[in-house]
Amino acid sequence: MNINRFPLRAGHAARFFTSDSLGAITTAERVERLNALEIPEAAAILATLPQQKAVCILGRPELHNAAAMLTEMPSEQVARLLNATANDRVADLFQEMSEGARAHLFSKLDGATCLAVQHLMGYPPRTAGSIMTTEFVSVPATWTVEQTLEHVRKVERSRETIYAIYILDPATHALTSVVTLRRLITGEPHEKVSSVAQNGGIVRADPLMSQEDVARLIRKHDLLALPVVGENEHMLGIVTVDDVIDTMIADQTEDAQKFGGMEALGKPYMAIGFAGMLRKRAGWLCALFLGEMLTASAMQHFEGEIEKAIVLTLFVPLIMSSGGNSGSQATSLIIRALALGELKLSDWWRVLLRELPTGIVLGAILGAVGFARIILWQNIGLYDYGEHWILVGWTIFAALIGIVTFGSLAGSMLPFLLQRLRLDPASASAPFVATLVDVTGLVIYFSVALLILSGTLL
Amino acid sequence: MNINRFPLRAGHAARFFTSDSLGAITTAERVERLNALEIPEAAAILATLPQQKAVCILGRPELHNAAAMLTEMPSEQVARLLNATANDRVADLFQEMSEGARAHLFSKLDGATCLAVQHLMGYPPRTAGSIMTTEFVSVPATWTVEQTLEHVRKVERSRETIYAIYILDPATHALTSVVTLRRLITGEPHEKVSSVAQNGGIVRADPLMSQEDVARLIRKHDLLALPVVGENEHMLGIVTVDDVIDTMIADQTEDAQKFGGMEALGKPYMAIGFAGMLRKRAGWLCALFLGEMLTASAMQHFEGEIEKAIVLTLFVPLIMSSGGNSGSQATSLIIRALALGELKLSDWWRVLLRELPTGIVLGAILGAVGFARIILWQNIGLYDYGEHWILVGWTIFAALIGIVTFGSLAGSMLPFLLQRLRLDPASASAPFVATLVDVTGLVIYFSVALLILSGTLL
Repeated sequence: MNINRFPLRAGHAARFFTSDSLGAITTAERVERLNALEIPEAAAILATLPQQKAVCILGRPELHNAAAMLTEMPSEQVARLLNATANDRVADLFQEMSEGARAHLFSKLDGATCLAVQHLMGYPPRTAGSIMTTEFVSVPATWTVEQTLEHVRKVERSRETIYAIYILDPATHALTSVVTLRRLITGEPHEKVSSVAQNGGIVRADPLMSQEDVARLIRKHDLLALPVVGENEHMLGIVTVDDVIDTMIADQTEDAQKFGGMEALGKPYMAIGFAGMLRKRAGWLCALFLGEMLTASAMQHFEGEIEKAIVLTLFVPLIMSSGGNSGSQATSLIIRALALGELKLSDWWRVLLRELPTGIVLGAILGAVGFARIILWQNIGLYDYGEHWILVGWTIFAALIGIVTFGSLAGSMLPFLLQRLRLDPASASAPFVATLVDVTGLVIYFSVALLILSGTLL
Repeated sequence: MNINRFPLRAGHAARFFTSDSLGAITTAERVERLNALEIPEAAAILATLPQQKAVCILGRPELHNAAAMLTEMPSEQVARLLNATANDRVADLFQEMSEGARAHLFSKLDGATCLAVQHLMGYPPRTAGSIMTTEFVSVPATWTVEQTLEHVRKVERSRETIYAIYILDPATHALTSVVTLRRLITGEPHEKVSSVAQNGGIVRADPLMSQEDVARLIRKHDLLALPVVGENEHMLGIVTVDDVIDTMIADQTEDAQKFGGMEALGKPYMAIGFAGMLRKRAGWLCALFLGEMLTASAMQHFEGEIEKAIVLTLFVPLIMSSGGNSGSQATSLIIRALALGELKLSDWWRVLLRELPTGIVLGAILGAVGFARIILWQNIGLYDYGEHWILVGWTIFAALIGIVTFGSLAGSMLPFLLQRLRLDPASASAPFVATLVDVTGLVIYFSVALLILSGTLL
């Protein structure tokens, strides 16, 4: 925690940030440049920046290894920076620190910050409480428009947003209404602030509401900030639109990686170590591999049929992949529709009734293409499927209808099942659905073959 | 276009929207209720609402079939509503109308709206120009803080956002700086408005910038609105944060559906018809099926080996799926990293150098598990893999290393290749990668088998 390790770096920050030909650079660009450096070097530069600029940079969740950088800096300076940083961000930074570093810094923070941050850290992760900030603007309902505006001007620097002003009951601290800054400035100065308040119910969140639901509310109502209220409408904090965008991006990344069949990385691709990358990928890959081992068991079970009709094995990969592909389509559709709230848990049977005919028709289309291939190859002499080639064709046709239908049904119902079990529907990955369908697909294929080819090939 | 078709519906709107037990309901809730109705009924209710409420509802992109509803309403009323609606939204609504309905309505709009909307419709879809609004607040640099504030109060009702105020050169209409409302209200009334303007470069977009890049800029700089400027810094419009959130959601849905191996639906799951759903899914499913047919060709090619060593076919599904799964992991990782700008096109070789060892180690892990299974099954007597079972085990082990490595490399390089060809990297779907890897996987498997088992089983 000593900056004197870098005695030659005095003035380095100034040079580092003015190398830009445009002269002035934005906070986002400063963050990018710091991200390109090693932690001690970035910490040294951050330490030499003016307090206001350093606070802006620290406030960005895009800054990599921010907590690690802080532990490299003098703790008195860090405390000064954190006192001036948004409380929700300070809580996030503390989550990333070791117990020891956190306790040491806590003792140096000023009382109000300390209390607010400890309170925020008490909420479970990924809830409204954990992403909200306690720095909002509130006024009692008895104030006039002019008084409120005067107050907003005074506290402007220390609040994350001043575009929504919350009117609280002076006695109970309960949220009674919301005024937007745009309406406030159009108000008559001597009227009560409530004269420009929003009509209608207040859109608000519970501190334990999931961050996905918070994002949905903000999106649905085009809000710049969403108030979080506890029992008896007691106002606790706000979630701002930029926090929600960051949350949405992180969720998207997580969902995309889960759908790809792995644990969410939680870090940029290049920022994660080799061992970390292996851990995140090997777990699911092994689990899927163990699941797919059932295909070997299924194949062993039908060994007699395979020996009698080797021609059947030629189509195993084709048949299996078709089930997996139709399952993957259905799953991605339903995961998204559930995430957007377009479908509810109780809609499962309506989806089932749609996927059933969809699967049958899609299967029939693929089956027809498969049958056509066999006719074509047989008749132009590319391959000889044996004397019963027409029956083999019918087997492929019927098996594809069964497998694509099963794939569509299994793929669409799995996200509902996960949601019902209070798991994340986004955990239904394309490889997982494929594995599920592969084993069943083999059983369907060989059963259909037994039915159609019994007495001829089998 | 005649509302008299519904003579009994007078007062229906009032009843429809006050049936809520809370009394007051929000615009978002009104939209949801209208979405649940048939188009003519929803149009009838919209027509009886007070103008201000109807404009709020029309402004929401979540409203289904809004364009169709408008064509059911008296065109004089529609013109009044559209004149009061944000121009970017009017342009979107017009895009969804038939040529005839559009021309008819255009003639009824007031001159300024007409011009702005025609201008907006001229930009290619999915660009900054096509999603921007021309209704922003701008003032000349010569004005004082007080003058500006007075102007903002006056135009507040007619602007999509007033939280960012743009200072333009009075002669050229070029953007010179930006003032946020929060800084403006803290300014000294008689100072020049430029005294509270932001320092540093202005973050701005070109009208042809892609909407994804616009979203990235807004996110990166935590903006509430991004100015769009043309040649010579001429100010054209703004993109607001709520438009960007809508765009992000739509993009996410599209990417998720593409990754699931289908065309993006473009509509909610339940809102799309049966035939439409089939079209969106059958195309890709058939393309993948045709690709997978190469697996049948590959199997036919190795028919001799299969006949001699049927034991090899038992592991075909297991081997193939492992390649597909590792490819799906790598693809989802790289698509996301490219979308977030964490990786650039020129990083492809760095990714290659990471995926190569990752693939080898992951393949070795799966190979070891596969080998262990063969040893176990053989020795506890669950299945007899023949006298050369140890060699079969080595074949599985070596093939898995080759296939998982190939899957990781192909899966990670495909998004780069698509980006290089100026296609959307998100088009690299999990099923597409699996298909790519399946065929190669079979060739690798049987080639490894020939190498190891030649002289014994083969």
